[in-house]
Amino acid sequence: MNKGAATRDMILKRAYAIACQSGLEGLSIGDLAAAAGMSKSGVFAHFGSREDLQLAVIDYGAQQFAESVLMPALRAKRGLVRLRKLVACWFDWVRDNRHGCLLMGAVNEYDARPGAQRDRVTETMDRWRNGTSRAVSIAIETHELHADTDARQLAFEILGIALALHQETQLFDPKQARIHADRAFDRLILANLSQPNLSQANLSQINSP
Amino acid sequence: MNKGAATRDMILKRAYAIACQSGLEGLSIGDLAAAAGMSKSGVFAHFGSREDLQLAVIDYGAQQFAESVLMPALRAKRGLVRLRKLVACWFDWVRDNRHGCLLMGAVNEYDARPGAQRDRVTETMDRWRNGTSRAVSIAIETHELHADTDARQLAFEILGIALALHQETQLFDPKQARIHADRAFDRLILANLSQPNLSQANLSQINSP
Repeated sequence: MNKGAATRDMILKRAYAIACQSGLEGLSIGDLAAAAGMSKSGVFAHFGSREDLQLAVIDYGAQQFAESVLMPALRAKRGLVRLRKLVACWFDWVRDNRHGCLLMGAVNEYDARPGAQRDRVTETMDRWRNGTSRAVSIAIETHELHADTDARQLAFEILGIALALHQETQLFDPKQARIHADRAFDRLILANLSQPNLSQANLSQINSP
Repeated sequence: MNKGAATRDMILKRAYAIACQSGLEGLSIGDLAAAAGMSKSGVFAHFGSREDLQLAVIDYGAQQFAESVLMPALRAKRGLVRLRKLVACWFDWVRDNRHGCLLMGAVNEYDARPGAQRDRVTETMDRWRNGTSRAVSIAIETHELHADTDARQLAFEILGIALALHQETQLFDPKQARIHADRAFDRLILANLSQPNLSQANLSQINSP
């Protein structure tokens, strides 16, 4: 990485940390310059505008999420093992980002505000639901999930479990929330197994990564 | 309602409308006074501080939600009919408040910010999850849902479906999102029926309010 790219990366890291706490709309170039020990014009030299910076932070947040959730799953065996890994890493992400998740915050800041930021958030979340849906489809291809399983429907329900986990982790008891989330996901998988006579015990065995 | 109470109610309605769009932190006494055609000191005469106003708006939002979702359910027959009515009204609320739901916004503004607002949001959401859980428990008492049904678990999963519906309604196709949400809830009920041999067709029949 050359010096320019390294500086840009350092600014982005600081901006991401601020935006996780205060939201992307709470991100001021002045505060960011102070946090990075730079002048405002120094920050502007790397990001043409506040909007460009916000878009870069959304991409940076998506990259953090992908590295923590998608990458470990892609290294796991194709099929149910991979799907379970994906969901376990997602639930871990919720736990580890309980004091502010950039993407969840961005959805709530921009969902009703048309513009480049909303478009970027929508693209990012659409890529993620396609990723979840793809992980379900592979587990259908490996004949672990039933051939009739609706991958988009399952991806929607998995998103729901993750969002309930997020909300209850933030507001209530995180451990209890995780127990509920794990049970909900297990039940979802059990209901869609190609061999529904497999017991829960067997299921845990064959699916341990 | 006397004149003072009527004015307070009018201010609250305006404040609620502003906060649904811009969030409770986006609520300025100046803007609110302008929207209500009053002086700032006039607004302060009814709400001692900005924080008091924000707490009153959270309560007002909770009341709107209760009138749209809880009240129609309480008028329905005890049991599965009532639970289905509650969830249908909740999903309708998500559709009708797609351009900004006060409570969803408040959860996201305050979940990581300790203070009186966060406490009020947590109490409100706790009351709501107890309400959902209670509706499930009644359907267990009427022997429509299986005696082993975990009411808190089901309430968590219903919350998840509503949150996924909220997110996908905001970002993607609202109609498709509602189809996914209805299917997810139907599946949840079917999996917990005390007579699991009831077909989906029969289920719709016995549960139509």
